Formats: sequence, C-alpha cells, structure tokens
Amino acid sequence: MTKPKQLKLGALLHGVGGSTSMWRHPDAKPDASVNFELYKSWVQKAEEGKLDLIFIADGLYINEKSIPHFLNRFEPLTILSALAGVSSKIGLVGTLSTSYSEPFTVARQFGSLDVISGGRAGWNVVTSPLEGSALNYGRKEHPDHGKRYRIAAEYLQVARGLWDSWEDDAFVRNKETGVFFDPEKMHTLDHEGEFFSVKGPLNIARSQQGGPVIFQAGSSEVGKNYASQVADAVFTGHDTLEEAQEFYRDVKTRVASFGRNPDEVLIFPGIGPILGDTPEEAERKYQEVAGLVTIENALNYLGRFFEHHDFSQYPLDEPFPELGDLGRNSFQSGTDKIKKNAKEKGLTLREVALQAATPRSSFIGTPEQVADQIQAWFEAGAADGFMLAAAVPNGLEEFVDRVVPILQERGLFRTEYESDTLRGNLGLPVPANRYVQAKEPSPLV
Amino acid sequence: MTKPKQLKLGALLHGVGGSTSMWRHPDAKPDASVNFELYKSWVQKAEEGKLDLIFIADGLYINEKSIPHFLNRFEPLTILSALAGVSSKIGLVGTLSTSYSEPFTVARQFGSLDVISGGRAGWNVVTSPLEGSALNYGRKEHPDHGKRYRIAAEYLQVARGLWDSWEDDAFVRNKETGVFFDPEKMHTLDHEGEFFSVKGPLNIARSQQGGPVIFQAGSSEVGKNYASQVADAVFTGHDTLEEAQEFYRDVKTRVASFGRNPDEVLIFPGIGPILGDTPEEAERKYQEVAGLVTIENALNYLGRFFEHHDFSQYPLDEPFPELGDLGRNSFQSGTDKIKKNAKEKGLTLREVALQAATPRSSFIGTPEQVADQIQAWFEAGAADGFMLAAAVPNGLEEFVDRVVPILQERGLFRTEYESDTLRGNLGLPVPANRYVQAKEPSPLV
Repeated sequence: MTKPKQLKLGALLHGVGGSTSMWRHPDAKPDASVNFELYKSWVQKAEEGKLDLIFIADGLYINEKSIPHFLNRFEPLTILSALAGVSSKIGLVGTLSTSYSEPFTVARQFGSLDVISGGRAGWNVVTSPLEGSALNYGRKEHPDHGKRYRIAAEYLQVARGLWDSWEDDAFVRNKETGVFFDPEKMHTLDHEGEFFSVKGPLNIARSQQGGPVIFQAGSSEVGKNYASQVADAVFTGHDTLEEAQEFYRDVKTRVASFGRNPDEVLIFPGIGPILGDTPEEAERKYQEVAGLVTIENALNYLGRFFEHHDFSQYPLDEPFPELGDLGRNSFQSGTDKIKKNAKEKGLTLREVALQAATPRSSFIGTPEQVADQIQAWFEAGAADGFMLAAAVPNGLEEFVDRVVPILQERGLFRTEYESDTLRGNLGLPVPANRYVQAKEPSPLV
Repeated sequence: MTKPKQLKLGALLHGVGGSTSMWRHPDAKPDASVNFELYKSWVQKAEEGKLDLIFIADGLYINEKSIPHFLNRFEPLTILSALAGVSSKIGLVGTLSTSYSEPFTVARQFGSLDVISGGRAGWNVVTSPLEGSALNYGRKEHPDHGKRYRIAAEYLQVARGLWDSWEDDAFVRNKETGVFFDPEKMHTLDHEGEFFSVKGPLNIARSQQGGPVIFQAGSSEVGKNYASQVADAVFTGHDTLEEAQEFYRDVKTRVASFGRNPDEVLIFPGIGPILGDTPEEAERKYQEVAGLVTIENALNYLGRFFEHHDFSQYPLDEPFPELGDLGRNSFQSGTDKIKKNAKEKGLTLREVALQAATPRSSFIGTPEQVADQIQAWFEAGAADGFMLAAAVPNGLEEFVDRVVPILQERGLFRTEYESDTLRGNLGLPVPANRYVQAKEPSPLV
C-alpha cells in the first residue's frame, strides 16, 4: 500500500505583517519586524508543527509611503542564519535579487547557510520588481523586465556551477598522508557569459542536500517560463480555486515541456487563514483587521506595485484610473491583474485600493473549515503545498495549534520530519554534481 | 580610587587553522572549518571566558594551492548571524571587502546582524589584498592599492550615512493614532560620490550600540592613515614587543592628528599562545605543530601573499629571491616586511617560507608566563587588547580555562560583562546620529 500524497507547508515570517495596518491590532507586537526573540519563537513554533520551511521575503527600496514592515526589517540572509542556530529540521528560505548582487557572493552566502543549517537552505530567486532599487545601487535605470530575467537565468547557472565546485567526496582529510583534498574533485567554473564572468572555485562545498532549494515567484509569462526551467518550488498567490488550478496546470505543463519531471517542481499558493471557534467569530476577526486600514494607507500600498505611483491625485470614487503600461516593468503579473479586474468589474479606485490592502481570503472560518479548504485545493490540483502568511497576529501559532493536527489526522500532513534536509522533507532529489553526472544517477535524500 | 585599565580580548575563529598544516595535528578536527557545532562550542567557550568578541576573517579567491581553511569555510555574515542566535553577550566581528560589494547591501547585512544580536556586531573593513578576487567578480583587474583605499573611504561614509537613516526614536508605533514613524526622523542619504551613488534610506534602524564597531587591519602607510581616520579598533600583528610598541605609538599619534581621541581607537595585536605545564612542554607542543609543515605547503602559503606567486621555481637554500614590486599591490605591509627581514638577516627561501608558515610566537610557555607576556605588552603600551589565534587545536579552550583566570585575578580582565553591547564592553561611545549631532552630545553605552 502506498502512502497517500502529503501536502507541504511553509510559513512566511513577516514581522508586523505584509499589510499596511496589522501592527495596529490590539494583539500585535508593533516592533515585530526587528524582534529577534519573536522570530525565534516563530521558527520554533513552525518546527513544532513540522512545517517544511519558513520564508523571509525582501525588497531593496523604501520611501516614506512604504508599509511598516518594509521600513525596518531584518535582511534575509542574516535572519535565516540566526534562525539556523536555533532550529534543527525546518527549511530556511529567503528572497534575494539577481539584479543587484554578485553571483559569487550570493552563491557563497546561501552555500554557507546551507552548510551551517545542515542542508536546510532555500533561495527565492527574484529579479527586483521595485524601480527605486536602482537608486540604492548607483544605476541609472532599473533593467527592464525581460533583461532582468535574462540576467537571472545566467546568474543561476553561475550559482549552480559554483555549488558544484567540489565533488561530495573531494575532501579526503588524511592526516597520515597530508592529503587534504583530491585536486581532481575540485572544479574551476571559468564562466564567461553575457552578464557575468566568474572563475571559481567557490570556497565552500555543497551541503548534504547538494545545494539550496530554488524558489521562484514569477507569474508573468517570462516569469512562469523561468520558474518552469529552473525552480524546485514556485511561490504564487490566487484569489480563487479556479485561478489556482489554472496556474498549477499551466506551470506543470511548462515544466514538462522543458523536459523536467512535474513532480519535482512544487507549487505553493500563499494563504492567509483567519480562524474562529465559529464562522462568525472568524469573520469578525477579518473585519477587525480590515477596519484598521485607512484609505491613505491603502493608496500608498497600491502605489508601490505601480512603480511608486502617487494614487492620491485621483478621485476615490470614480472608476479606477487608466494607467497605460505603468506597472508592467515592476510587478508585471500583479498589476496586469489589478487593471483587468478593475475594468471587468467596474471598480472604483477606493474599492481597488482597499481590496489590495486587505484581500478577503478563502481561508476564513473554523479550523475544520480551513482544513477543508486546504484539502479541497490540494486534492483539486491547485497546490502541492501552501505558504502561510499570517493575516492576524498569532496567525502562525493558531494555525499550528488548531489546523495542523486536523491535517495530520486526515493523513494529509506529516507527524514527524522524514529527513534532516529541506530537499528531503520536500521529497526533491539531490541534484547531481555536473562533474560527476556521467558516473552516478541522482540519489534521493 | 579608579579601577585599573583593563585589557580587551578577542578570539579569531578559523576552523582547521590559519596555518597550512594544523589540521594534521592528532587533536585537530579536520572538518573544523565547516563544522557549525564546533563554532557554536567555541563562541560559547569564549563567552564563558567573558571575551569581548569573536572574529571571522575572510578571503574572496582560492586556487589549488590555498591552505585548507581557505578552501572550504563559512562565509562571515552567515556564520556570525548563526552564532548570534546561540550567544548573548559576546561581540561578533567579521571581515568584508569594500572592493567587491555594494554598500547598500553590506550596510544592511551588518545593520541587520547588529539588531539581531542586540548591538554586538563588528565589521572588519578590508580592501581585498588577493589579486585573484577580480576573477570571481568579472573585473578586468584588481584595483590598485591606493584606489582600493579611496573606494573604502567613500564606502564607509555611505555605510555610516545609511546607518543614520533613522533617528533612535523615529519609530513611534502608536496604535491609537496610527502613526508608525515620525517622517522628520527618517533621513534619505542621497549620496553621490566618485565611486558610489546611493539614495537610501536604509530599511533597518540602528541597534542600541548605534551601528557596528569598525575594525581595520591595514598596516601600510595608507592603511594606517585609513584606520586612524575611521576605525574603532585595529587588528594587527607583530613579532616583538618593540615592533608592537612602535606600531601602537604610530597609530595613536595618527588618530590624534586626525582630531580623534586616541582612547577611542583600540589596538589588538594577534597572538597565538601555546600553553604547557612547563616551559619545556609548551616548546614541545610548538615543535609538534611546526613539524607538521612540509616545505611544499610553506611555499604555497608564502605565494599567496605575493599575488599567488609560484615559489617552487627557486632553489630552496639560496638567498630569498629578488622580487621587485611583487606583493606591493596585495599584502603591501606584510610583503615589504618579509623582503626587508630576508635581506637584513640573509635568509634563504626555505627559512623565509617555514617562518611564514609557523611563526614562532612570543606567547609560548606556562599559563603564568603567557599571562606575564600579555601583561607586559599591555602595560608597555603595545596593545589595548589581544586577538587570540589558536596555534594548536583547543587553543581557545585552554586559554579560557588557564590564562583568563590569571588575568582576572590580576585585575587585568573583567569577571563579568559590563554591557550587553560590543561598544559597551569595549568602552567605546555610541556614535551620534549625524542628523541629531547638533542637539545631543554622544552618550556612553
């Protein structure tokens, strides 16, 4: 008898919240984004719940309109490394942009995190949607959307090449003979490409999972193709089951078209569950959070997606303004969707802004109802797993205490970690080292 | 009665050792450079000994001749962050080069480490001596020595400007009024310089120590001037007391000439104590370590200082070869010293290489003798503190167990941490935020 397929779970840790106003909630810790003790308690709670991973998102530009969490928060590699020291099984995944960094440094930092954590690192490869990022990195302009993805493609080739610098048995460390390593198992990359020229070798070897797990969150055409070619996992977001199913089918088909195994690219929609003892209590909790948002906050929040556009210049209760191509070079798929939705439903600016600031999730209800929704999405081919983004303070703690046990009872989620590595828990194979590919098949962790 | 001045202590954590062959010692853990549990035990041992800080050195290029520790080791920011999670008082200092990185990223990563650790971060600003680094970063050539320091000067200005992005009381976080921060206390740097253009603000606020402690290790003329202008602490190395005194006087004089308080720039010579129950046992331990080095190892080790030069081409027992300017663009002060010393003493290549590979430290003896030497250097104006670089496996553990108590008994070293921050323990003032300098004097931690 084969075990039923199990779903995967990640938790986005985002301090005072990914929304404009959650910090004002009575239960919120308003310094959460820079509170290490809180992050530590979260990762330990997530590990208690046997979650696959925690996830740290990122951005490279702020201004006075940025939401609280973006203004003052931990940098991903440092907080993930700090959390590596206080956890032992859970995956540690973070965002880092390929548009404003050097592949030698980034391959090294993620490689080091991977070794420190015993094979638990993951890298969410992004191309930096925010136009303003260029200003913090001495660039005349933000590279255009297509170019950003061409850079990202070459960048990841370089990083993966560097991670293969050392074969897994390169370090002999024989005290008697004085041989520390086998020079035939050390490989110099000598990459010369359109954007990068990197010699190598990297000065850290692969971890037991054979290199960080690659996440990608692109939802544009270019983004989906990129993810389908290179990612181990895709982080996405959908308002409805149908939309999620469509995305899932689309990406899995693309993955197969690139000659890859669709089971080896896991799709994680983000969800923001809100739990109550009754459906009414959950709804009340949602309304409480939504009620904290001012229209000014909501307009600022919306503006960030559209290249820091100032929406306060338009009348609030007229139809959503015509913006032309604005937003297509930043969050392309997100802004396309907002425009399309506003046009189709005839929404006003106020409606669009408030919906963006406090999206009404399909995962609001009793723990059983939320578990039902999760099961329904999972079994309907909309998700391989879910990324929890707490929509209320203590959202992670409540989910672990009240929803995880239901998913476990139903046989949908693990009761113990299967592995010490992130790839092992996600059921992903250890990538073969390119220099030994001919000799050995790729083993499972 | 004023308390006598106390010395400061740091510990360089360098895995299998900063030498070519310590990994072959019977007590050595040959995977030490990538063994997180070992690093964790070291930082906890150092904290048990009330040491001021641990220090992680770095380099950006390896080849097949590199010493074992350099081939496969943790990246500083990730290992320091991981150690932040498993320690609570000790400072966490690491090397990062200004020649191959972006100030926005680095200010942010060190700023984040500083907040995660509660004000315990330090940054050893280096300009990358290794020529080969350019090859890993797509550069046609390694910038010359003078230019590297001009870049470093502007870089640090930018980093410090970014650390002042937020005044210490900028985050109001008033749930009632909905005011998260005071926009008048957020500052946009708008730096436009010769090498960098960085807008800001930084997306993380200052820690309680007001920004990472700045270490510098330059010993060339340019390097000493740079350190005297910008550093909080200087990491150096000397063979004799007289040489250390000369360096100490020189740097303190330069510090004063730049209008700074010489007490606010601390000088840390590196020392590699070897302890024995008797002087003879200590000497035997030194000989055991020195005996592990082969001449081939020693030539490779030496070559790294001279722009990866191949010394195997010269006869071993002839006078040290004439090298012209070779080495002046990498480790300038170090290679100048090696050449001068070889010429003055008429040393052969073999003698120079073996001395470089296993320097004979002045800190070999019984715990009392080593404590005497430390006290002598400290009281003779050669040091404000010392950076321990274990010259034998378990060197840190032995020092904490056997020498620290003697220093404590003599009133030369603390028995409890004075502060929760690195600046506080080092007795350094919290730097004033440039945007409030007019209003308030700089307080002590």
